[in-house]
Amino acid sequence: RIMQLERQLQLHSQLDSVGMVDYALWSAGAYVITALTSATYAAQPSWGWWPLSSARPALQWKPPELALSPEVHLGYCWAMLSSSGTLGVALPRTIIPRAVTIDHVAKPLLFQVESAPRDVEVWIIPEHLDNTSMGAQRDAIITASGADLLDHPGLFQPHRFRATTFVRLINFTYDVHGSNAVQSFAVPGEVNEFNLKTNTVLFKFLTNWGNKEYTCLYRVRVHGDNTQE
Amino acid sequence: RIMQLERQLQLHSQLDSVGMVDYALWSAGAYVITALTSATYAAQPSWGWWPLSSARPALQWKPPELALSPEVHLGYCWAMLSSSGTLGVALPRTIIPRAVTIDHVAKPLLFQVESAPRDVEVWIIPEHLDNTSMGAQRDAIITASGADLLDHPGLFQPHRFRATTFVRLINFTYDVHGSNAVQSFAVPGEVNEFNLKTNTVLFKFLTNWGNKEYTCLYRVRVHGDNTQE
Amino acid sequence: RIMQLERQLQLHSQLDSVGMVDYALWSAGAYVITALTSATYAAQPSWGWWPLSSARPALQWKPPELALSPEVHLGYCWAMLSSSGTLGVALPRTIIPRAVTIDHVAKPLLFQVESAPRDVEVWIIPEHLDNTSMGAQRDAIITASGADLLDHPGLFQPHRFRATTFVRLINFTYDVHGSNAVQSFAVPGEVNEFNLKTNTVLFKFLTNWGNKEYTCLYRVRVHGDNTQE
Repeated sequence: RIMQLERQLQLHSQLDSVGMVDYALWSAGAYVITALTSATYAAQPSWGWWPLSSARPALQWKPPELALSPEVHLGYCWAMLSSSGTLGVALPRTIIPRAVTIDHVAKPLLFQVESAPRDVEVWIIPEHLDNTSMGAQRDAIITASGADLLDHPGLFQPHRFRATTFVRLINFTYDVHGSNAVQSFAVPGEVNEFNLKTNTVLFKFLTNWGNKEYTCLYRVRVHGDNTQE
Repeated sequence: RIMQLERQLQLHSQLDSVGMVDYALWSAGAYVITALTSATYAAQPSWGWWPLSSARPALQWKPPELALSPEVHLGYCWAMLSSSGTLGVALPRTIIPRAVTIDHVAKPLLFQVESAPRDVEVWIIPEHLDNTSMGAQRDAIITASGADLLDHPGLFQPHRFRATTFVRLINFTYDVHGSNAVQSFAVPGEVNEFNLKTNTVLFKFLTNWGNKEYTCLYRVRVHGDNTQE
Repeated sequence: RIMQLERQLQLHSQLDSVGMVDYALWSAGAYVITALTSATYAAQPSWGWWPLSSARPALQWKPPELALSPEVHLGYCWAMLSSSGTLGVALPRTIIPRAVTIDHVAKPLLFQVESAPRDVEVWIIPEHLDNTSMGAQRDAIITASGADLLDHPGLFQPHRFRATTFVRLINFTYDVHGSNAVQSFAVPGEVNEFNLKTNTVLFKFLTNWGNKEYTCLYRVRVHGDNTQE
């Protein structure tokens, strides 16, 4: 009985909570596509009457690659500038995406819930998207251009992905008050049926839980079928 | 049943063992106050008849910030010089401290227990400490000056905290032979009632378990009520 | 009941899966002996039609020290060149080795199983090996010279360990399809009886599960009795 429990325990930590390959892991070869990614929040230090002042920068600058790494300790996140924005991820393989996962620090360990992401859309650049042959179900596919999706045009003009066609994979709400801080979301059936292949995923964070300055992204994961086995 | 277990498992690792916010996490904005912190032990390498000699340095030099980071793998600690000393931590928020936690590598994984901390005091610099208005209970509060608490005056003369008043929050013994290597200690009631606010915590390590050269500090945590929500 | 479970959970993560001291941990003072260690695989980037091409390097270059560190997230491994080779580890203490452990990413989280190690031998340089006094049991001891064991002579000529006598501790098969990705192997009784002391361990990876270019080594551990307590 104890042995069985021990076994469960062992498998649990080995399976990294969700038990699915994460194609967005930086250490596995994924990387951040700068041209698809929002600016990083940089705290303004205002030191005041140190050491008793509480006006210290709460957040050191950290790169967006942190959102592709497994650590989720408090503050060990990418602080995306403002309450909305994007994170573009190049996967190390071409896959058929089936689900994504958002990790955040569990609520009892958080200073504030406001900086967690809330409404999220996930878009991909599909490898092939034949406009003529799909027939009626084609309506299930929502597309947009890079120009529509990316709202930080100033930084990277002329924008390489301006005319690129993206397909929306999922939209969902991350519930920071949920009992499980690691939340997975499956690609809905009507999109899933297309078996779209991709190696480029765009997370579009529409809202957060109230912080107007930045949004903390601890970890995003992309799951799916490996097309190169 | 398995699902319930799975759930417990998930929450457990998400809750970082103790399920309380850690205001001393470096990644969350806390940092080491050098003027309140002892020197770091630096091993003297004496290579002898390499590679069969056993006279190798067992410990690489590592900064005190390691004691504010979550990893507790063997050797991944701050080696404080000698068997006693101090670690000063600036918190990212002003809080009312309620408890502290000491993490150490579990005994079955240790080479030697001697370098673990033993008798510990925790002091704070309170935000306000009104000497006149407290009446009788005021006796419950033990104070000391920086000059009394810091025993490495040579390094940082003239000492910035020499005349600062510290209040003792807790004293306790870390039991390296205990069955749980992560040990939390609550602020005792008579001090707790004062609801003292602080953003500066001083860990004073009085003794260790026998190592005369250094004391290994894997992780210290500070828990409490956030006064800035 | 829940408390008991919670307790099991706590101890489990504290015990690092196997509950034995790991004398091969880099953070505890172990290090890689370059002269006993194979070359590292370096991926050839061939960028192709980025970003939709799948011809990206799946593996960044990482040093062999990664195989002595506790992280086992996908890709966070030492990629040893080719399907066979060696890893030499200097231990921080002289011990009597009793077992070794191989860690790998759990199968459900892997892109490919082919790069996992398969047939492995573990050799040591014994502190003393008296050839005359052992009598009959001496047959249980298999020895070899560095020249026999190391198959990358070109790199480090003239080889420092060419004439050194190694003793074989164990040979085993790592099962990448096993239900537990953390697999420990005890030193067999006939060798164990000799209580051989060592501070130098050579992992000789004979085969892997099919990848001809490289072998991923996530973590090796060495367990035993500390002779310096």
